[in-house]
Amino acid sequence: MADKPIILNKTTVAKSRLFHIEALDIQFSNGVQRSFERLTRGRPGGAVLIVPMLDDDTVLLIREYSAGVHRYELGLPKGKTDPGETFLEAANRELKEEVGYGANKLHHLSSFSLAPSYLEHMTEIILAEDLYAEKLDGDEPEELEVVPWKLSEINALIATGECTEARSIAALFMALEYLKARPL
Amino acid sequence: MADKPIILNKTTVAKSRLFHIEALDIQFSNGVQRSFERLTRGRPGGAVLIVPMLDDDTVLLIREYSAGVHRYELGLPKGKTDPGETFLEAANRELKEEVGYGANKLHHLSSFSLAPSYLEHMTEIILAEDLYAEKLDGDEPEELEVVPWKLSEINALIATGECTEARSIAALFMALEYLKARPL
Repeated sequence: MADKPIILNKTTVAKSRLFHIEALDIQFSNGVQRSFERLTRGRPGGAVLIVPMLDDDTVLLIREYSAGVHRYELGLPKGKTDPGETFLEAANRELKEEVGYGANKLHHLSSFSLAPSYLEHMTEIILAEDLYAEKLDGDEPEELEVVPWKLSEINALIATGECTEARSIAALFMALEYLKARPL
Repeated sequence: MADKPIILNKTTVAKSRLFHIEALDIQFSNGVQRSFERLTRGRPGGAVLIVPMLDDDTVLLIREYSAGVHRYELGLPKGKTDPGETFLEAANRELKEEVGYGANKLHHLSSFSLAPSYLEHMTEIILAEDLYAEKLDGDEPEELEVVPWKLSEINALIATGECTEARSIAALFMALEYLKARPL
Protein backbone atom coordinates (compact mmCIF):
# COMPACT_ATOMS: atom_id res chain seq x y z
CA MET A 1 0.00 0.00 0.00
CA ALA A 2 1.25 3.52 -0.80
CA ASP A 3 2.01 5.99 1.99
CA LYS A 4 -1.03 7.95 3.09
CA PRO A 5 -1.49 11.18 1.13
CA ILE A 6 -0.65 14.47 2.83
CA ILE A 7 -3.15 17.29 3.31
CA LEU A 8 -1.34 20.39 1.99
CA ASN A 9 -4.18 22.80 2.58
CA LYS A 10 -7.68 22.76 4.04
CA THR A 11 -10.27 25.55 3.73
CA THR A 12 -13.93 25.95 4.57
CA VAL A 13 -15.94 26.51 1.40
CA ALA A 14 -19.44 26.81 2.85
CA LYS A 15 -21.31 26.34 6.10
CA SER A 16 -24.95 25.85 6.95
CA ARG A 17 -26.88 24.84 10.04
CA LEU A 18 -26.13 21.12 9.49
CA PHE A 19 -23.29 21.00 7.01
CA HIS A 20 -19.74 22.13 6.66
CA ILE A 21 -18.04 21.84 3.25
CA GLU A 22 -14.23 21.68 3.14
CA ALA A 23 -11.83 21.91 0.21
CA LEU A 24 -8.68 19.79 0.57
CA ASP A 25 -5.46 20.03 -1.43
CA ILE A 26 -3.91 16.58 -1.30
CA GLN A 27 -0.49 15.31 -2.33
CA PHE A 28 -0.17 11.61 -3.08
CA SER A 29 3.01 9.67 -2.36
CA ASN A 30 3.84 9.70 -6.10
CA GLY A 31 3.91 13.52 -6.00
CA VAL A 32 0.59 14.04 -7.82
CA GLN A 33 -1.53 16.82 -6.30
CA ARG A 34 -5.32 16.89 -6.44
CA SER A 35 -8.14 18.98 -4.97
CA PHE A 36 -11.10 17.35 -3.20
CA GLU A 37 -14.27 18.58 -1.55
CA ARG A 38 -15.72 16.81 1.43
CA LEU A 39 -18.55 17.27 3.86
CA THR A 40 -17.68 17.32 7.53
CA ARG A 41 -20.00 17.27 10.53
CA GLY A 42 -21.37 20.73 11.23
CA ARG A 43 -21.29 19.96 14.98
CA PRO A 44 -19.41 17.56 17.22
CA GLY A 45 -20.72 14.08 18.08
CA GLY A 46 -21.41 10.92 16.16
CA ALA A 47 -24.31 8.92 14.80
CA VAL A 48 -25.83 5.59 15.79
CA LEU A 49 -28.02 3.09 13.95
CA ILE A 50 -29.82 0.56 16.11
CA VAL A 51 -30.83 -3.04 15.27
CA PRO A 52 -33.58 -3.68 17.86
CA MET A 53 -34.35 -7.39 18.24
CA LEU A 54 -37.74 -8.18 19.76
CA ASP A 55 -36.63 -11.82 19.74
CA ASP A 56 -33.82 -13.68 17.94
CA ASP A 57 -35.61 -13.50 14.59
CA THR A 58 -37.75 -10.35 14.79
CA VAL A 59 -36.29 -6.91 14.18
CA LEU A 60 -38.28 -3.72 14.76
CA LEU A 61 -38.17 -1.33 11.80
CA ILE A 62 -39.64 2.15 11.60
CA ARG A 63 -41.36 3.92 8.75
CA GLU A 64 -40.17 7.52 8.72
CA TYR A 65 -40.31 10.51 6.41
CA SER A 66 -36.85 11.11 4.96
CA ALA A 67 -36.35 14.67 3.73
CA GLY A 68 -33.20 13.88 1.70
CA VAL A 69 -35.14 11.65 -0.72
CA HIS A 70 -38.57 13.20 0.11
CA ARG A 71 -40.42 9.95 0.78
CA TYR A 72 -41.18 7.49 3.57
CA GLU A 73 -38.44 4.95 4.18
CA LEU A 74 -38.64 1.67 6.09
CA GLY A 75 -35.44 1.20 8.01
CA LEU A 76 -33.64 1.00 11.32
CA PRO A 77 -33.97 3.68 14.01
CA LYS A 78 -31.05 6.10 14.18
CA GLY A 79 -29.92 9.42 15.49
CA LYS A 80 -27.09 11.58 16.68
CA THR A 81 -25.35 11.50 20.03
CA ASP A 82 -26.19 14.26 22.48
CA PRO A 83 -23.28 16.05 24.23
CA GLY A 84 -21.72 13.77 26.86
CA GLU A 85 -23.51 10.63 25.68
CA THR A 86 -21.69 7.42 24.76
CA PHE A 87 -22.78 5.60 21.59
CA LEU A 88 -24.58 2.94 23.66
CA GLU A 89 -26.45 5.59 25.67
CA ALA A 90 -27.45 7.41 22.50
CA ALA A 91 -28.64 4.14 20.96
CA ASN A 92 -30.82 3.35 23.96
CA ARG A 93 -32.32 6.88 24.04
CA GLU A 94 -33.09 6.87 20.31
CA LEU A 95 -34.64 3.42 20.67
CA LYS A 96 -36.94 4.71 23.42
CA GLU A 97 -37.85 7.82 21.41
CA GLU A 98 -38.42 6.21 18.03
CA VAL A 99 -39.55 2.66 18.81
CA GLY A 100 -40.87 2.81 22.37
CA TYR A 101 -38.46 0.26 23.82
CA GLY A 102 -35.32 0.29 25.91
CA ALA A 103 -32.69 -2.47 25.80
CA ASN A 104 -30.99 -4.32 28.66
CA LYS A 105 -28.35 -5.59 26.23
CA LEU A 106 -26.49 -3.35 23.80
CA HIS A 107 -23.64 -4.59 21.60
CA HIS A 108 -21.45 -2.57 19.22
CA LEU A 109 -21.56 -4.49 15.92
CA SER A 110 -19.58 -2.30 13.54
CA SER A 111 -18.68 1.21 12.32
CA PHE A 112 -19.84 2.23 8.85
CA SER A 113 -18.83 5.03 6.56
CA LEU A 114 -21.46 6.26 4.11
CA ALA A 115 -19.52 7.65 1.18
CA PRO A 116 -15.93 7.77 2.35
CA SER A 117 -14.76 9.64 -0.74
CA TYR A 118 -16.71 12.79 0.13
CA LEU A 119 -18.33 12.39 3.58
CA GLU A 120 -16.43 12.38 6.86
CA HIS A 121 -19.44 10.86 8.64
CA MET A 122 -19.27 7.50 10.40
CA THR A 123 -22.19 5.59 11.97
CA GLU A 124 -21.92 3.16 14.90
CA ILE A 125 -24.10 0.06 14.51
CA ILE A 126 -25.60 -1.11 17.80
CA LEU A 127 -27.45 -4.40 18.29
CA ALA A 128 -30.16 -3.98 20.96
CA GLU A 129 -31.61 -7.04 22.72
CA ASP A 130 -33.61 -7.96 25.81
CA LEU A 131 -36.06 -5.11 25.16
CA TYR A 132 -38.54 -3.57 27.63
CA ALA A 133 -41.35 -1.14 26.86
CA GLU A 134 -40.38 2.47 27.57
CA LYS A 135 -41.38 5.49 25.55
CA LEU A 136 -39.44 8.75 25.63
CA ASP A 137 -40.61 11.90 23.86
CA GLY A 138 -38.32 12.67 20.96
CA ASP A 139 -38.33 15.49 18.43
CA GLU A 140 -40.31 13.56 15.83
CA PRO A 141 -42.87 15.69 13.95
CA GLU A 142 -45.29 12.75 13.81
CA GLU A 143 -45.70 9.34 15.46
CA LEU A 144 -43.42 6.80 13.78
CA GLU A 145 -44.92 3.53 12.62
CA VAL A 146 -43.11 0.51 14.07
CA VAL A 147 -42.95 -2.47 11.70
CA PRO A 148 -41.78 -5.88 13.00
CA TRP A 149 -39.94 -7.90 10.33
CA LYS A 150 -38.37 -11.36 10.26
CA LEU A 151 -34.61 -10.84 10.11
CA SER A 152 -34.29 -13.95 7.94
CA GLU A 153 -36.53 -12.24 5.35
CA ILE A 154 -34.19 -9.40 4.43
CA ASN A 155 -34.53 -10.11 0.72
CA ALA A 156 -38.30 -9.66 0.88
CA LEU A 157 -37.73 -6.39 2.75
CA ILE A 158 -35.39 -5.04 0.08
CA ALA A 159 -37.84 -6.19 -2.62
CA THR A 160 -40.53 -3.87 -1.17
CA GLY A 161 -38.50 -0.93 -2.50
CA GLU A 162 -39.24 0.89 0.76
CA CYS A 163 -35.96 -0.02 2.45
CA THR A 164 -33.17 1.47 0.33
CA GLU A 165 -30.70 2.71 2.92
CA ALA A 166 -27.34 0.97 2.53
CA ARG A 167 -26.61 1.38 6.26
CA SER A 168 -29.83 -0.38 7.26
CA ILE A 169 -29.34 -3.18 4.73
CA ALA A 170 -25.70 -3.78 5.70
CA ALA A 171 -26.56 -3.66 9.43
CA LEU A 172 -29.40 -6.20 9.02
CA PHE A 173 -27.14 -8.64 7.15
CA MET A 174 -24.42 -8.23 9.79
CA ALA A 175 -26.88 -8.77 12.65
CA LEU A 176 -28.15 -11.91 10.95
CA GLU A 177 -24.59 -13.26 10.60
CA TYR A 178 -23.74 -12.31 14.19
CA LEU A 179 -26.82 -14.01 15.65
CA LYS A 180 -26.32 -17.14 13.50
CA ALA A 181 -22.70 -17.48 14.65
CA ARG A 182 -23.48 -16.96 18.35
CA PRO A 183 -23.46 -20.09 20.48
CA LEU A 184 -26.94 -20.98 21.76
CA MET B 1 -49.11 5.06 6.37
CA ALA B 2 -49.65 8.83 6.64
CA ASP B 3 -49.98 10.98 3.50
CA LYS B 4 -46.65 12.16 2.18
CA PRO B 5 -45.57 15.50 3.66
CA ILE B 6 -45.80 18.60 1.49
CA ILE B 7 -42.83 20.83 0.63
CA LEU B 8 -44.01 24.36 1.47
CA ASN B 9 -40.79 26.09 0.57
CA LYS B 10 -37.38 25.19 -0.81
CA THR B 11 -34.33 27.46 -0.88
CA THR B 12 -30.66 27.05 -1.71
CA VAL B 13 -28.55 27.70 1.37
CA ALA B 14 -25.07 27.13 -0.05
CA LYS B 15 -23.37 25.84 -3.18
CA SER B 16 -19.88 24.58 -3.89
CA ARG B 17 -18.20 22.81 -6.79
CA LEU B 18 -19.62 19.42 -5.73
CA PHE B 19 -22.42 20.16 -3.27
CA HIS B 20 -25.69 21.99 -3.14
CA ILE B 21 -27.38 22.51 0.25
CA GLU B 22 -31.14 23.07 0.33
CA ALA B 23 -33.41 24.16 3.15
CA LEU B 24 -36.91 22.63 3.07
CA ASP B 25 -40.00 23.74 4.95
CA ILE B 26 -42.16 20.65 5.30
CA GLN B 27 -45.75 20.22 6.45
CA PHE B 28 -46.73 16.79 7.77
CA SER B 29 -50.24 15.38 7.27
CA ASN B 30 -50.98 16.11 10.96
CA GLY B 31 -50.34 19.81 10.30
CA VAL B 32 -46.96 19.98 12.06
CA GLN B 33 -44.38 22.06 10.19
CA ARG B 34 -40.66 21.45 10.37
CA SER B 35 -37.51 22.74 8.65
CA PHE B 36 -34.93 20.35 7.17
CA GLU B 37 -31.62 20.72 5.42
CA ARG B 38 -30.55 18.31 2.74
CA LEU B 39 -27.72 17.87 0.32
CA THR B 40 -28.61 17.53 -3.34
CA ARG B 41 -26.39 16.62 -6.26
CA GLY B 42 -24.40 19.63 -7.45
CA ARG B 43 -24.66 18.36 -11.05
CA PRO B 44 -26.98 16.04 -12.96
CA GLY B 45 -26.37 12.29 -13.26
CA GLY B 46 -26.26 9.35 -10.91
CA ALA B 47 -23.77 7.08 -9.24
CA VAL B 48 -22.90 3.42 -9.72
CA LEU B 49 -21.20 0.87 -7.49
CA ILE B 50 -19.92 -2.25 -9.25
CA VAL B 51 -19.59 -5.80 -7.86
CA PRO B 52 -17.03 -7.32 -10.30
CA MET B 53 -16.97 -11.13 -10.11
CA LEU B 54 -13.81 -12.75 -11.46
CA ASP B 55 -15.58 -16.08 -10.92
CA ASP B 56 -18.67 -17.11 -8.90
CA ASP B 57 -16.82 -16.77 -5.58
CA THR B 58 -14.13 -14.13 -6.22
CA VAL B 59 -14.91 -10.43 -6.14
CA LEU B 60 -12.38 -7.78 -7.17
CA LEU B 61 -12.01 -5.00 -4.58
CA ILE B 62 -9.91 -1.86 -4.87
CA ARG B 63 -7.86 -0.05 -2.28
CA GLU B 64 -8.35 3.67 -2.79
CA TYR B 65 -7.63 6.89 -0.94
CA SER B 66 -10.91 8.33 0.36
CA ALA B 67 -10.71 12.06 1.05
CA GLY B 68 -13.92 12.16 3.14
CA VAL B 69 -12.40 9.99 5.86
CA HIS B 70 -8.74 10.74 4.87
CA ARG B 71 -7.55 7.14 4.71
CA TYR B 72 -7.30 4.21 2.31
CA GLU B 73 -10.47 2.15 2.04
CA LEU B 74 -10.91 -1.34 0.64
CA GLY B 75 -14.19 -1.50 -1.23
CA LEU B 76 -16.02 -1.83 -4.52
CA PRO B 77 -15.24 0.32 -7.55
CA LYS B 78 -17.66 3.18 -8.11
CA GLY B 79 -18.17 6.41 -9.91
CA LYS B 80 -20.56 8.89 -11.46
CA THR B 81 -22.33 8.64 -14.78
CA ASP B 82 -21.02 10.82 -17.59
CA PRO B 83 -23.57 12.83 -19.62
CA GLY B 84 -25.57 10.54 -21.92
CA GLU B 85 -24.38 7.32 -20.26
CA THR B 86 -26.73 4.66 -18.90
CA PHE B 87 -25.97 3.15 -15.49
CA LEU B 88 -24.73 -0.05 -17.11
CA GLU B 89 -22.42 1.87 -19.48
CA ALA B 90 -21.05 3.92 -16.58
CA ALA B 91 -20.48 0.73 -14.55
CA ASN B 92 -18.52 -0.87 -17.39
CA ARG B 93 -16.40 2.26 -17.97
CA GLU B 94 -15.58 2.66 -14.26
CA LEU B 95 -14.70 -1.03 -14.10
CA LYS B 96 -12.24 -0.61 -16.98
CA GLU B 97 -10.73 2.54 -15.43
CA GLU B 98 -10.44 1.36 -11.84
CA VAL B 99 -10.00 -2.42 -12.08
CA GLY B 100 -8.71 -3.03 -15.61
CA TYR B 101 -11.57 -5.28 -16.71
CA GLY B 102 -14.70 -4.96 -18.83
CA ALA B 103 -17.79 -7.15 -18.34
CA ASN B 104 -19.84 -9.03 -20.92
CA LYS B 105 -22.65 -9.43 -18.38
CA LEU B 106 -24.03 -6.55 -16.32
CA HIS B 107 -27.03 -6.92 -14.00
CA HIS B 108 -28.76 -4.20 -11.98
CA LEU B 109 -28.98 -5.59 -8.42
CA SER B 110 -30.49 -2.76 -6.42
CA SER B 111 -30.69 1.00 -5.73
CA PHE B 112 -29.31 2.28 -2.45
CA SER B 113 -29.75 5.53 -0.59
CA LEU B 114 -26.92 6.60 1.69
CA ALA B 115 -28.51 8.74 4.36
CA PRO B 116 -32.05 9.35 3.14
CA SER B 117 -32.81 11.85 5.91
CA TYR B 118 -30.31 14.41 4.62
CA LEU B 119 -28.84 13.21 1.30
CA GLU B 120 -30.74 13.08 -1.98
CA HIS B 121 -28.09 10.77 -3.48
CA MET B 122 -28.91 7.28 -4.75
CA THR B 123 -26.42 4.66 -5.99
CA GLU B 124 -27.19 1.93 -8.52
CA ILE B 125 -25.62 -1.43 -7.66
CA ILE B 126 -24.40 -3.34 -10.72
CA LEU B 127 -23.19 -6.95 -10.70
CA ALA B 128 -20.49 -7.43 -13.37
CA GLU B 129 -19.67 -10.93 -14.64
CA ASP B 130 -17.91 -12.65 -17.55
CA LEU B 131 -14.96 -10.25 -17.29
CA TYR B 132 -12.28 -9.58 -19.91
CA ALA B 133 -9.05 -7.62 -19.46
CA GLU B 134 -9.34 -4.03 -20.71
CA LYS B 135 -7.77 -0.98 -19.14
CA LEU B 136 -9.07 2.54 -19.72
CA ASP B 137 -7.31 5.63 -18.41
CA GLY B 138 -9.37 7.23 -15.68
CA ASP B 139 -8.80 10.34 -13.61
CA GLU B 140 -7.17 8.47 -10.71
CA PRO B 141 -4.25 10.36 -9.12
CA GLU B 142 -2.41 7.07 -8.51
CA GLU B 143 -2.65 3.45 -9.64
CA LEU B 144 -5.36 1.63 -7.66
CA GLU B 145 -4.48 -1.65 -6.00
CA VAL B 146 -6.84 -4.47 -7.03
CA VAL B 147 -7.52 -7.00 -4.24
CA PRO B 148 -9.33 -10.27 -5.05
CA TRP B 149 -11.47 -11.50 -2.15
CA LYS B 150 -13.65 -14.56 -1.59
CA LEU B 151 -17.25 -13.33 -1.56
CA SER B 152 -18.10 -15.98 1.03
CA GLU B 153 -15.56 -14.36 3.38
CA ILE B 154 -17.32 -11.02 3.84
CA ASN B 155 -17.06 -11.23 7.62
CA ALA B 156 -13.27 -11.53 7.44
CA LEU B 157 -13.24 -8.53 5.10
CA ILE B 158 -15.26 -6.38 7.52
CA ALA B 159 -13.04 -7.56 10.38
CA THR B 160 -9.98 -6.03 8.65
CA GLY B 161 -11.41 -2.60 9.51
CA GLU B 162 -10.40 -1.43 6.03
CA CYS B 163 -13.82 -1.95 4.45
CA THR B 164 -16.25 0.31 6.29
CA GLU B 165 -18.48 1.61 3.50
CA ALA B 166 -22.10 0.59 4.09
CA ARG B 167 -22.80 0.59 0.34
CA SER B 168 -19.96 -1.86 -0.34
CA ILE B 169 -20.93 -4.14 2.56
CA ALA B 170 -24.63 -4.18 1.62
CA ALA B 171 -23.81 -4.78 -2.06
CA LEU B 172 -21.49 -7.70 -1.23
CA PHE B 173 -24.14 -9.38 0.94
CA MET B 174 -26.77 -8.86 -1.77
CA ALA B 175 -24.49 -10.26 -4.49
CA LEU B 176 -23.80 -13.31 -2.32
CA GLU B 177 -27.55 -13.90 -1.83
CA TYR B 178 -28.25 -13.35 -5.53
CA LEU B 179 -25.56 -15.79 -6.68
CA LYS B 180 -26.60 -18.41 -4.10
CA ALA B 181 -30.23 -18.24 -5.25
CA ARG B 182 -29.41 -18.42 -8.97
CA PRO B 183 -30.02 -21.81 -10.59
CA LEU B 184 -26.76 -23.49 -11.68
